[in-house]
Amino acid sequence: MSAAAQMLETYPQDLGGIDREKLVACIEACLECAQACTACADACLAEDMVADLRTCIRTNLDCADVCEATGRVLSRHTGYDANLTRAVLEACAAACKACGDECSGHAEMHEHCRVCAESCRRCEQACRELISSLG
Amino acid sequence: MSAAAQMLETYPQDLGGIDREKLVACIEACLECAQACTACADACLAEDMVADLRTCIRTNLDCADVCEATGRVLSRHTGYDANLTRAVLEACAAACKACGDECSGHAEMHEHCRVCAESCRRCEQACRELISSLG
Amino acid sequence: MSAAAQMLETYPQDLGGIDREKLVACIEACLECAQACTACADACLAEDMVADLRTCIRTNLDCADVCEATGRVLSRHTGYDANLTRAVLEACAAACKACGDECSGHAEMHEHCRVCAESCRRCEQACRELISSLG
Amino acid sequence: MSAAAQMLETYPQDLGGIDREKLVACIEACLECAQACTACADACLAEDMVADLRTCIRTNLDCADVCEATGRVLSRHTGYDANLTRAVLEACAAACKACGDECSGHAEMHEHCRVCAESCRRCEQACRELISSLG
Repeated sequence: MSAAAQMLETYPQDLGGIDREKLVACIEACLECAQACTACADACLAEDMVADLRTCIRTNLDCADVCEATGRVLSRHTGYDANLTRAVLEACAAACKACGDECSGHAEMHEHCRVCAESCRRCEQACRELISSLG
Repeated sequence: MSAAAQMLETYPQDLGGIDREKLVACIEACLECAQACTACADACLAEDMVADLRTCIRTNLDCADVCEATGRVLSRHTGYDANLTRAVLEACAAACKACGDECSGHAEMHEHCRVCAESCRRCEQACRELISSLG
Repeated sequence: MSAAAQMLETYPQDLGGIDREKLVACIEACLECAQACTACADACLAEDMVADLRTCIRTNLDCADVCEATGRVLSRHTGYDANLTRAVLEACAAACKACGDECSGHAEMHEHCRVCAESCRRCEQACRELISSLG
Repeated sequence: MSAAAQMLETYPQDLGGIDREKLVACIEACLECAQACTACADACLAEDMVADLRTCIRTNLDCADVCEATGRVLSRHTGYDANLTRAVLEACAAACKACGDECSGHAEMHEHCRVCAESCRRCEQACRELISSLG
């Protein structure tokens, strides 16, 4: 079991009706995507054609910031607020969609964009599934 | 002129049609609110009645994270994406609304909640004004 | 291979003499520890005896912030600066030591503190091993 | 009085022997510097000569992350740990020194680097003064 799953298991109060599996999957996807985006921005910066990767770098940086904040919000269960959780997940899905689209456009040329795009797709999907499960 | 305003002034490309005054106001409100929320969570933790302030602390922590991510997204202009900006601002307004409401409920008893609630109100307002100006 | 390992593999320039295995291990330990600490702060907040866990919550929050910043710095390789990397790793090891010690003191009573302490120990160890390998 | 100063004033417990003026100055310098560095990375990205600004962008991003984490740690007073505070301040001073040096080298050519370098110098100085005052 991952540390994130263990932390959820050991939360001392009731978690309400939230789907634990989808929640853990989304937390882990946010962490992975934030790191991939931070690394992809840096890898783009190191490319000879960095001038053509400006939008990619910017979208990577935004996505990293939003995924990180989302992973934090989802790691808290005390005083849970479904409206706030939903708004944050919507922003995260939007950031992952934008970054996944952008990186996909460079995936054949840059392996780091291919790996990053996959992390963005997984995270966008995990956010949307968690949003749906919130009811 | 604040450093945030100076940084905006010195951006080397066109900023598009964005309202500079509202943008700077929103960046500064995000920074201030993130710090106030971080400090308010800590001040609540130091209160004798900390057990009654659980929801306040949690909402403070969420609001700090979302404001910080929003301040970063708004500080970037290269490869601007209005949809992503709007989604992030909506999440930030939601976080500030939740935290402003929560802190307001303790404002008479705790001065730090009063100061923090004011920062949240300002930031929520700044987000909403910037959203409106995005058209 | 983890996404963090894949991102390192696909970095388009030379990584210098850095120990790739220790670097990936440290990045992953930082991500895991940041999440565990964020969740442990929240779980402590939900305990009946929250008033006795103030220091634990505070140390958790600091450790989460420092681990997150460290994971980001380590995910960048362009324009590498060994002095900065070392200073950040030292701060991270100090934060993980403080939080691991604090959580260990509650590990028998609170499972979340036990899991979190293990993440802190792993991350502290990973930071120290990476520092040593920097030469 | 700034919000950061007000939040410090309203902290409900004793702050120990810490120098309040230096603490507030350092918190505010961290916030300002983090924002300036985030914006400077983006402004560098928008320059025609972005390929020559790779190291500057990377150092900006690191400095933003470390300043943000430092600003958060300094905003907490509950369960204060002087060793951790000192280690974080040392890392922050190192990040500000690196970024201030790098941006200074481009200050005549890029106004955003000039403004950012000034924020880095102020923040490095504020960190060092606070370290000294910790005794």
